[in-house]
Amino acid sequence: MQKGILFIISGPSGVGKGTVAKALLEGSSGGMVFSVSATTRAPRPGEENGREYFFVSREEFDRMIEDGEFLEYMNVFGRNYYGTPRKYVEEQLMLGRDVLLDIDVNGAMKVKENCPEAVAIMLAPPSMKELRRRLETRGTEVQEVIERRLAEAKSELSRMAEYDYVVVNDDLNTAICQCRQIIESAKHTPEYCTEFVNELINEDF
Amino acid sequence: MQKGILFIISGPSGVGKGTVAKALLEGSSGGMVFSVSATTRAPRPGEENGREYFFVSREEFDRMIEDGEFLEYMNVFGRNYYGTPRKYVEEQLMLGRDVLLDIDVNGAMKVKENCPEAVAIMLAPPSMKELRRRLETRGTEVQEVIERRLAEAKSELSRMAEYDYVVVNDDLNTAICQCRQIIESAKHTPEYCTEFVNELINEDF
Repeated sequence: MQKGILFIISGPSGVGKGTVAKALLEGSSGGMVFSVSATTRAPRPGEENGREYFFVSREEFDRMIEDGEFLEYMNVFGRNYYGTPRKYVEEQLMLGRDVLLDIDVNGAMKVKENCPEAVAIMLAPPSMKELRRRLETRGTEVQEVIERRLAEAKSELSRMAEYDYVVVNDDLNTAICQCRQIIESAKHTPEYCTEFVNELINEDF
Repeated sequence: MQKGILFIISGPSGVGKGTVAKALLEGSSGGMVFSVSATTRAPRPGEENGREYFFVSREEFDRMIEDGEFLEYMNVFGRNYYGTPRKYVEEQLMLGRDVLLDIDVNGAMKVKENCPEAVAIMLAPPSMKELRRRLETRGTEVQEVIERRLAEAKSELSRMAEYDYVVVNDDLNTAICQCRQIIESAKHTPEYCTEFVNELINEDF
């Protein structure tokens, strides 16, 4: 069976990663799944282990770090740990499913180091002014945090060359469509088609 | 202005390169042009210099070889020379137009050597049996030539890894659509987006 591909959707805070990722998954007709993260935080009502997150203890998380079981992990606000378990991703890929990972720039670069064959897409805002507008409209952060996010965005965008693709999220539907084209193209690389072409070469004619 | 991209459509004889290339060009709404080859053969009625071909003398062709003006060239049946002039391709790219080159596998590989940034697509048949059927239906070649073409096809397909993409030409419209997705994706590489992202990074916010 043809192995799946790991796609990383990444970019600055406020650029619309989550919305684009959700639309890609919904349009994938089951051939694509979200990566499920592990976390040390407690499950919230309605959350199910293995669906929203793998809920693990701090001791278990430490052991997983120790054993190299994460493609990346981070400590949020010095409290809860979040990480991308390699095992879940690899199992899905082996089942022929593509895996989608919606993640910040630092995390994306760590995953890309651990999985160089992953296809990393940087979502960029059409302008810094528009990114500011989106962060302000979201209304979830105080002004000081917004200024910090904008400064971070510039440093994140400057890592563009480490990505495989850059998509500008100006019009949402256009961005989604461009991501879909990239996802389709990834299935036409020689690495992905080796098995088929080898069969051709060995076919009697 | 954003430079264009050189796309190479290549593959075994009979796979449908010409048909796919023509459809891609027709659907490009003017943003893409065919590469115009130089040849030493005489113009046929209705052919115009610089449109179908650049018609040059044997002496001029030799000088162009000497001066490294070809991305690739070949001698067909030991009689006429055909070549892809670097200058024409580069002029079109500088005008922001994509250039499409429909060429056999040997030629494609020479162009890729001279222009590593070109995007090379290998068109593959769905099966060797189907390739045989297409060559036979075409009815332009005797059986002996068809057998030789099929043997060549295998050796050509085995160079797949030197291409950027592989597209199976089973259903023509599907193949055209997949080539279009690849062409669009090529506009989202970091190299292609450098200018835009640099502007973002330098924008006041």
